[in-house]
Amino acid sequence: MDKKIPYKIYLEENEMPKCWYNVRADMKVKPAPLLNPATLKPATIDELSAVFCRELAEQELDNDTAYFEIPEEIRSFYKMYRPSPLVRAYCLEEKLGTPAHIYYKFEGNNTSGSHKLNSAIAQAYYAKKQGLTGVTTETGAGQWGTALSMACSYFDLKCDVFMVKVSYEQKPFRREVMRTYGANVTPSPSMETEVGKKINAEFPGTTGSLGCAISEAVEKAVTTPNTRYVLGSVLNQVLLHQSVIGLETQSALKKYGVKADVIIGCAGGGSNLGGLISPFVGEMLRGEANYDIIAVEPASCPSLTRGKYAYDFCDTGKVCPLAKMYTLGSSFIPSANHAGGLRYHGMSSIVSELYDQGLISARSVEQTDVFKAAETFARVEGILPAPESSHAIKVAIDEALKCKETGESKNIVFGLTGTGYFDLVGYKNYNDGNLKDYIPTDEELAKSLNQLPKV
Amino acid sequence: MDKKIPYKIYLEENEMPKCWYNVRADMKVKPAPLLNPATLKPATIDELSAVFCRELAEQELDNDTAYFEIPEEIRSFYKMYRPSPLVRAYCLEEKLGTPAHIYYKFEGNNTSGSHKLNSAIAQAYYAKKQGLTGVTTETGAGQWGTALSMACSYFDLKCDVFMVKVSYEQKPFRREVMRTYGANVTPSPSMETEVGKKINAEFPGTTGSLGCAISEAVEKAVTTPNTRYVLGSVLNQVLLHQSVIGLETQSALKKYGVKADVIIGCAGGGSNLGGLISPFVGEMLRGEANYDIIAVEPASCPSLTRGKYAYDFCDTGKVCPLAKMYTLGSSFIPSANHAGGLRYHGMSSIVSELYDQGLISARSVEQTDVFKAAETFARVEGILPAPESSHAIKVAIDEALKCKETGESKNIVFGLTGTGYFDLVGYKNYNDGNLKDYIPTDEELAKSLNQLPKV
Repeated sequence: MDKKIPYKIYLEENEMPKCWYNVRADMKVKPAPLLNPATLKPATIDELSAVFCRELAEQELDNDTAYFEIPEEIRSFYKMYRPSPLVRAYCLEEKLGTPAHIYYKFEGNNTSGSHKLNSAIAQAYYAKKQGLTGVTTETGAGQWGTALSMACSYFDLKCDVFMVKVSYEQKPFRREVMRTYGANVTPSPSMETEVGKKINAEFPGTTGSLGCAISEAVEKAVTTPNTRYVLGSVLNQVLLHQSVIGLETQSALKKYGVKADVIIGCAGGGSNLGGLISPFVGEMLRGEANYDIIAVEPASCPSLTRGKYAYDFCDTGKVCPLAKMYTLGSSFIPSANHAGGLRYHGMSSIVSELYDQGLISARSVEQTDVFKAAETFARVEGILPAPESSHAIKVAIDEALKCKETGESKNIVFGLTGTGYFDLVGYKNYNDGNLKDYIPTDEELAKSLNQLPKV
Repeated sequence: MDKKIPYKIYLEENEMPKCWYNVRADMKVKPAPLLNPATLKPATIDELSAVFCRELAEQELDNDTAYFEIPEEIRSFYKMYRPSPLVRAYCLEEKLGTPAHIYYKFEGNNTSGSHKLNSAIAQAYYAKKQGLTGVTTETGAGQWGTALSMACSYFDLKCDVFMVKVSYEQKPFRREVMRTYGANVTPSPSMETEVGKKINAEFPGTTGSLGCAISEAVEKAVTTPNTRYVLGSVLNQVLLHQSVIGLETQSALKKYGVKADVIIGCAGGGSNLGGLISPFVGEMLRGEANYDIIAVEPASCPSLTRGKYAYDFCDTGKVCPLAKMYTLGSSFIPSANHAGGLRYHGMSSIVSELYDQGLISARSVEQTDVFKAAETFARVEGILPAPESSHAIKVAIDEALKCKETGESKNIVFGLTGTGYFDLVGYKNYNDGNLKDYIPTDEELAKSLNQLPKV
């Protein structure tokens, strides 16, 4: 086996990206704008600034600037846990007996356990710069809430996290990490907001949903002085910050003269996938290269593969701007699968538009297959992957096995977004043989899709 | 602030150690030999080989060979998660306002979450090489058991882990990681061994201890064909393998022309501390340099600072060889503090001898101070440290604050052995203000010390 390429490619500090890349600048057809839920007209900078920090709102609306300089303070923080390694999966290749070369960009080596920290620190920075005293957010599985807690602790900002009640109860340790970083964690729906009270009254005993927690966090932000709302996925600004993943991957591959053939990422709201693929899609849009890009989603929440491309609400309370996206409908209730980070009804507008233009493809996979891939990976590569990340592993293995059949030595690159230390209930169910697959029926999907707003 | 030194110093693959370093070779007075518990004479290679793999037994007894080549297979595995970064703690320095330069060698970036993997993979390799089909071991907090499970999975060996019952019940997720790596995990004391049955009969309802789990694992090894016992700390062979930590640290410091002044490690059985300091102690023994080396132990289990230097049993069942070490007596029951990895009654013979010769010093610290240091560290350095590792953080902070008083720019290096993702019960108690300090009284210590064997 040719081992001229090290197991782990680390960029030097001075090779780290100095700018984020905004793929919208190279897109001929831009993603559709956010709409104000009251007027159904494109949301203006002033409207968005009431909810988001001003500079983040500017980033959100900017379809033209290709590169945004990463502020020095954020680059300093990045240096604590970045550059993340691009790992050559020699052991997995050997295990599979494939001629393919497999690489993964590993984003799990920080205490938040995932890539979420890349955008959390940026959003906390702009909040601090604007003179705010705190931010609010929601969290489902807990990765985003943890990342934001860490970022707020670093910049000494108050951090209010609304955590989906079922996760709050099932993942007490996630909550404890956030508390250790000084965050105030509230189970959602709570009695602290009007929307929370309303949902609790309508659905007594509900264990909450991401869409509901978003509504609570937004309400809390707009009713608290010097406070704004921040979000860990879906938005353009988040994909912008997450482009650091793709830019580092691109530099690391270039450094060793490797041209990727297939690029794979798991897709929930699109933060990791969008960040990983942006610079590569940029090359495609500029006619410089071609890649086979695959978004992987759970069969239980298949927004790209079975959703509709339409304007939809981002939250249950319908207080947020509407986004045009591949969606299952904001009333869709995903099954209790173990990839909490992939259980959102919609998909980033940028990713949706790229998919609609045929620049990327999508595939859905079932939970038991995903955990099987995770186990294989953990045993040979020594990293216990998050269930979310394991969706990408599953498809990377599938692609590598195809190469085994055809004899092709493709370069397969996938994003390993994080670790599974807080997902061991899922692993236990898998180890015990108690894992189930859930695939919504066409009738179930039609029900929520029929409730899409008329825009 | 001078930032010529990067936040994280990564060695290149070709700069990684090719040999382990055996500090005993440079010691004029060698550590005392292990004694056969039946004869009270030095254990021979044949006696040890009945329990341990032959090559490991040879390493155990070899006081003369300074360098052992690291087999290619182990170096390949090391490349999956090593070199580990030597991190310059710029943010912690700034937070403390100290002129000191603080560095930490971070061993937590692998799924076992600690340095234990360095020796686990070596021991599994020699077991495989000898043609064994499996190994047995004990685990308390779970780091060692997890590391060994990963190593055995890699070499396709059967792995039987006796896990102290209280941990088995309190840390179901640790157990689940081991199961994911294919290990068979049994709560100890069990009814699977004679010694387990005996202890269960004598102390009905006991939640077990490390000493008891060791006895069970040894019995299981010697009564199962093609199986040997392996141990994650205390032994000379373990410190040999763990020297990879110190060797990498030494190379990384040299690469940037940094001379350490103070070197700090937490000490339970001595595996991390011994591994970290060995190459530096070697320099001291050869008269090449001088370092201020500090072993940090919990005030609740103070073997170096309040123990006796004497021969003692390593396990409750008294089936293992006796070791000369600083000990609190094998009948000492440490309090339920949260640093499970530091709750062993004795200390590595090598570390004990170095301490007795005055080459290293020791300090004991209390649990609440340790968690306070952990919190400070987590918030500025972005890593949630294990409670064990946080003992070293506490003393590193103390030393850095001393520098603040004196104005000295000392180079302080400490070992950050692992992450605290499975220790959040401890963090919760700290966050809730429910953490207690336990310090054994002189009377309590006298009780167990009076039961030391007459050798």
